[in-house]
Amino acid sequence: MSLTVVGSLAFDAVKTPSGERERMLGGAATHFALAASFFDEVRAVGPVGDDFDDEAWAILRTRGTITDDVEHVRGGKTFFWKGVYGEDLNERHTLATDLNVFERFEPKLSQAARDCDVLFLANIQPQLQADVRRQCPRARFVAMDSMNLWIDIAHGPLVEVIRQVDCLMLNDEELMMLTEKRTTLAAAREILSWGPSAVVAKHGRFGAGLYTHEGSFALPAYPLEQVVDPTGAGDSFAGGFVGYVAANRDEEITHELLCRAMAYGTAIASFNVEEFGTERVARLTAPEISQRVERLHRMTSFELEPLALRD
Amino acid sequence: MSLTVVGSLAFDAVKTPSGERERMLGGAATHFALAASFFDEVRAVGPVGDDFDDEAWAILRTRGTITDDVEHVRGGKTFFWKGVYGEDLNERHTLATDLNVFERFEPKLSQAARDCDVLFLANIQPQLQADVRRQCPRARFVAMDSMNLWIDIAHGPLVEVIRQVDCLMLNDEELMMLTEKRTTLAAAREILSWGPSAVVAKHGRFGAGLYTHEGSFALPAYPLEQVVDPTGAGDSFAGGFVGYVAANRDEEITHELLCRAMAYGTAIASFNVEEFGTERVARLTAPEISQRVERLHRMTSFELEPLALRD
Repeated sequence: MSLTVVGSLAFDAVKTPSGERERMLGGAATHFALAASFFDEVRAVGPVGDDFDDEAWAILRTRGTITDDVEHVRGGKTFFWKGVYGEDLNERHTLATDLNVFERFEPKLSQAARDCDVLFLANIQPQLQADVRRQCPRARFVAMDSMNLWIDIAHGPLVEVIRQVDCLMLNDEELMMLTEKRTTLAAAREILSWGPSAVVAKHGRFGAGLYTHEGSFALPAYPLEQVVDPTGAGDSFAGGFVGYVAANRDEEITHELLCRAMAYGTAIASFNVEEFGTERVARLTAPEISQRVERLHRMTSFELEPLALRD
Repeated sequence: MSLTVVGSLAFDAVKTPSGERERMLGGAATHFALAASFFDEVRAVGPVGDDFDDEAWAILRTRGTITDDVEHVRGGKTFFWKGVYGEDLNERHTLATDLNVFERFEPKLSQAARDCDVLFLANIQPQLQADVRRQCPRARFVAMDSMNLWIDIAHGPLVEVIRQVDCLMLNDEELMMLTEKRTTLAAAREILSWGPSAVVAKHGRFGAGLYTHEGSFALPAYPLEQVVDPTGAGDSFAGGFVGYVAANRDEEITHELLCRAMAYGTAIASFNVEEFGTERVARLTAPEISQRVERLHRMTSFELEPLALRD
């Protein structure tokens, strides 16, 4: 029993108003695993090249993440992404996307990875996500991410795989684009009618919302004095959110449980953006997470006091 | 004792993906008064022209708003704004801004308006806001709005008036622009050091945040299936927020009180955007507001359950 994540392992070159890194470990599966490993044993599935060095392996294996299913493609190079963030960190320009070994990636999961209790399909081609979904029939909770590219060029296959998962996590624009609806709530309700029991809308620096058949829930982002690098925040969020579900293996996956999961996702994502790439989450501690979840609870709570309104 | 608001009274022409209105009552003071009148007796201060008709007066006077301080400029025309919203309602293009009687507006408050308990300075020239602030020395809570134009062309006077109020309400981009900071928290802390005891950051469709010397608080927007017209949402929010403070005249203005005020602002703003202009809030009822505040409370609450994290 463990948590399997399938997605990219990468090197990133990133420039933000706070500084830059020429080459640092990145990739959706990496950020997810670093976060989720606080909650359960994680198995990472994804391809790497010859350039995936000891330091990268060491970071990926933080808190015992199992890398038996990481495929080393001999003679290949690891996925490389280069991007620059604008002054306010909301605009991001991609300068280079070298897929390298990721281009011909065909996920082959070991029996141990297939036996996962919980599965996260990070943003990869929908047809590959569907294939992995089929390989993991016993997973009691499957969540997935995607992106505007697949909504554009693989809408049908994307909808097909969404029908087979429990939770779709996208940003608001993607949810509306996918469903051709004008509000996040309308988009989420449409997606819930396709099959998933939960939709998570990522609001970037403003937090995230959760939609289930039981209702809506939302959390603001944890306020920070300084944001250094937003890269990987969404995958860190997913790692905390999905990880929390995995950690509560004996509990029914209710709306209330997913609300608590949202708090852990929000807390870990807030640490992720405090430094470049994996730097902050790699040395994060459990007490730091718990403290931030408590603070988030306090800063989103208000008392309902009866007030006689004029009418 | 009452709540005074100084700001624009206007006619708006608005086109959104849901439809359009050629001419409807608008203006910051209008939207504020409609919301705040659920909480306290409101006195509206602003100029109108000969075209301000019986229907406009009737809407403005909803729930007893006092219009003795509304200046009718003979021979003049009421402020007119025309705008169009893009498909996703986040982009707004101004097609016309005819200041008309608003161009030479010099607020002259009656003694009753000056004796207000709570004052809201809607978005007008900072020098005029400062003048009104001086006319109301006994107000125990003064909140203000502004806009990017004044940050650009009247930065000094704007900072001067901010120093003399209790609460500044701006959107995130404006807060960062005003302070030259890169996060809302950093901007809010800077502004708190200037004098105000509270800063409200408006996040548009994602809700709002509150920053005081006691800490941070944030609420997501109330999720809606359909958004018809965002015009006036910020001023409706301000009316609910500031109105709540006014309604609790015997209570100390604590961080907790302002958190509850945020919930009322959020609830009323969510009704505002459900229809064009003032249409929805003009026929809103107190029970509807209370119900939405309760739902907002439920959809932002989560239980803190201890969880042993792996470390």
